[in-house]
Amino acid sequence: MSDPLPGYIGRLREALESLEVVVGDRIRIVKSDGFVVEGVLMPREKLYAKEIIVIKLDNGYNIGVRYDSNTIIEKLGKRVEIKGIEKVKPVKNPKLPNVMIMSTGGTIASRVDYETGAVKPALSSEDLASLIPEIFEVANIDTNILFNIFSEDLTPKHWEKIVERAAKFVEEGFNGVVITHGTDTMAWTAAALSFAFRKLPVPIILVGAQRSSDRPSSDSAFNLLAAVVAAAKAPFAEVAIVMHGETGDSYALAHRGTKVRKMHTSRRDAFQSINDLPLAKIYPYVKRIEVINNVFRRRGEDKEVHVEAKFDEKVALVKFYSSIDPEVIDFFVDKKYHGIVLEGTGLGHFPQRLINAVKRAVEEGIAVVMTSQCLFGRINMYVYSTGRLYLEAGVIPGEDMLPEVAYVKLSWILAKTRDLNEVRKLMLTNIAGEINPRHTVNLYPRWPHES
Amino acid sequence: MSDPLPGYIGRLREALESLEVVVGDRIRIVKSDGFVVEGVLMPREKLYAKEIIVIKLDNGYNIGVRYDSNTIIEKLGKRVEIKGIEKVKPVKNPKLPNVMIMSTGGTIASRVDYETGAVKPALSSEDLASLIPEIFEVANIDTNILFNIFSEDLTPKHWEKIVERAAKFVEEGFNGVVITHGTDTMAWTAAALSFAFRKLPVPIILVGAQRSSDRPSSDSAFNLLAAVVAAAKAPFAEVAIVMHGETGDSYALAHRGTKVRKMHTSRRDAFQSINDLPLAKIYPYVKRIEVINNVFRRRGEDKEVHVEAKFDEKVALVKFYSSIDPEVIDFFVDKKYHGIVLEGTGLGHFPQRLINAVKRAVEEGIAVVMTSQCLFGRINMYVYSTGRLYLEAGVIPGEDMLPEVAYVKLSWILAKTRDLNEVRKLMLTNIAGEINPRHTVNLYPRWPHES
Repeated sequence: MSDPLPGYIGRLREALESLEVVVGDRIRIVKSDGFVVEGVLMPREKLYAKEIIVIKLDNGYNIGVRYDSNTIIEKLGKRVEIKGIEKVKPVKNPKLPNVMIMSTGGTIASRVDYETGAVKPALSSEDLASLIPEIFEVANIDTNILFNIFSEDLTPKHWEKIVERAAKFVEEGFNGVVITHGTDTMAWTAAALSFAFRKLPVPIILVGAQRSSDRPSSDSAFNLLAAVVAAAKAPFAEVAIVMHGETGDSYALAHRGTKVRKMHTSRRDAFQSINDLPLAKIYPYVKRIEVINNVFRRRGEDKEVHVEAKFDEKVALVKFYSSIDPEVIDFFVDKKYHGIVLEGTGLGHFPQRLINAVKRAVEEGIAVVMTSQCLFGRINMYVYSTGRLYLEAGVIPGEDMLPEVAYVKLSWILAKTRDLNEVRKLMLTNIAGEINPRHTVNLYPRWPHES
Repeated sequence: MSDPLPGYIGRLREALESLEVVVGDRIRIVKSDGFVVEGVLMPREKLYAKEIIVIKLDNGYNIGVRYDSNTIIEKLGKRVEIKGIEKVKPVKNPKLPNVMIMSTGGTIASRVDYETGAVKPALSSEDLASLIPEIFEVANIDTNILFNIFSEDLTPKHWEKIVERAAKFVEEGFNGVVITHGTDTMAWTAAALSFAFRKLPVPIILVGAQRSSDRPSSDSAFNLLAAVVAAAKAPFAEVAIVMHGETGDSYALAHRGTKVRKMHTSRRDAFQSINDLPLAKIYPYVKRIEVINNVFRRRGEDKEVHVEAKFDEKVALVKFYSSIDPEVIDFFVDKKYHGIVLEGTGLGHFPQRLINAVKRAVEEGIAVVMTSQCLFGRINMYVYSTGRLYLEAGVIPGEDMLPEVAYVKLSWILAKTRDLNEVRKLMLTNIAGEINPRHTVNLYPRWPHES
């Protein structure tokens, strides 16, 4: 190893350098809460770029200790030869809940090997133990790799595989399941799982990262720790997305899987609840969960897991644009699609010139659902004559569902039934928290109006 | 008239009833600022459901006086016979700026006749003078009806007509133009006008209403007054949308026409700036404008008006959904479209299974632009391999443009040139404030995270 401090960065590296400590040196670490530990400084992978000191204890175990401004490091000398990175072997604690971390890909599961620079696919529990040691204070962790796919390439067929695998782990008795996922379509998958898990006794938490693990600004470790806290301890047995609540490392949010959306291309707090309050705030470092939305299925309320895991891929999402031609609707009818979600304007409108094409779609047995590109608020097609015309044509109003959630729901319903009356009834029924019957005035965000 | 107080509602009606005042009675009105006026109470149309007293003065003029909790009404007796509603004839004041209010339809221009219940198309200056008398303290108003169309039915051909008509009024020397518009697609039209007005010496303000004028909660009068204040007095010569800034009647916001979006189906403050600060806050009752964004074209900076008013209708907007099939792209290629805006995921991704269809589109001379359904943030296609693949296929990254703004811009560019290199250059050039080169951290709204 040419670098005397492989994997160490930032203020921790500066502190070690100023003490002339290198890997192999014996050190003592004193934390402000009285925690004291001695051992040999070990190299670490530059994954989860947090300031964590990895040392080998005299009993042979490696542990990770978080470095902060109150951490005192003393050099004790007695350098020993170190061959390379050793994985920390986590020890199961029978008093802690058991959490499965299942990987489907995405930034959070990607890692850059510090020597080769190659991108490796996913995390083992040993990786996690070395790099986010706090996780093992919350739960016993097992890990499983389902696949490693860019999330924009996931189709409804992948949702079915995720549901089946997660259901298996719930059946095996895990107290919670964490699913690492690319952020691009994490909300789409969260909606799919929300509909698929008709009975669910424990939480299923999707989690991702907006910045890759090898960047100092990475949100991987914070989000993953928060997700494990939610999976292990949350009072709700819901499918939820757990991500940064604001730009700092103060709290994460758990969002209901049917009411959440990626609202920013790059910010850590990109995921936000729409037309609903988040389920809870999670303070990962103190392992505390603060419920802020009392509408949820309680942990253990369902005694068993039951899934309805089929999705129909012949569903399209068509967004309004000013020059849209009826031939676009005709195309999906001609191609024998089973459902179309319209992303209309305002309260649920589409140009009147498309009404005949939509009428024909319904006549040919295609379910057509209206949603709004406003995202916030609720469809109301009774206010203006355009809305009433589309209602008469057989269009199903999408309530306060996000367009993507209406799409996922329609795909899920059409895998059960093609009977349009039945489809309508199910679309208008709140199945997984996707329809919020009452909006309080405080659900709308506050935009910046100051210079 | 069977109603003794036609058109009077709310607290004003209660006050009149408690005084046993009916239409035809002579009354005196005393305002807290010392304003005193006497005349005969006149009937009024139940349009703009604000509490305004219309009285006929002894000189024969009708005026409207706003009623508030400090307004004192005294009954003076001497009832006279009143035949019906008389319009207030506004008097031109040579010291005030001249503003044209142009109507294209929408809720703000709709009015319910208080006797027949019929919906009438639009407003005359006489209507405005009776019903929003404050407007005439700000500017001399002329009105013009261009058309009366549901805004979801407006196509790029209508944008061309709006541009031509508004340009004519600017050429005639109006100090500002207000365009009343349905809210559903007002942001689309605002973007179109922003690109079309290459030189513009005065502001063009689009304004709408979320609640119709005959409802007590209507935002018509507040918004229209704010729009006239902006058209008459704003320091910027920009195309802007002026609408309620929050749910109360404290301030309106002027949003840049290329950075604004209808974000709620029904709230008064549905319009919000995305990836940019609003241009200004407008306090309509005190006629004050507070600039909060200093990036704008100044009033009078351009000495003349110059428009490039053509738009290409062969442009499609295709939003990502999980089961999207390459045949959707093929359809638009086969139909000889000239441009496609992709509304992708995250930093600007689309499924890899569509890459060949997109490659073929570019090879056949179709301009393909990538935007993000996150809405907030910026496209960056260099971070992940999917983005790089689409860049190699010839896709133009849409910077921080909203999908609908990229669609309008592409439609405007393709009416000038079909040369893909030229299209790319123009798409990546900031033409009308649609690309904000620097995002400050405070541009992202604050979502509610409290129970």
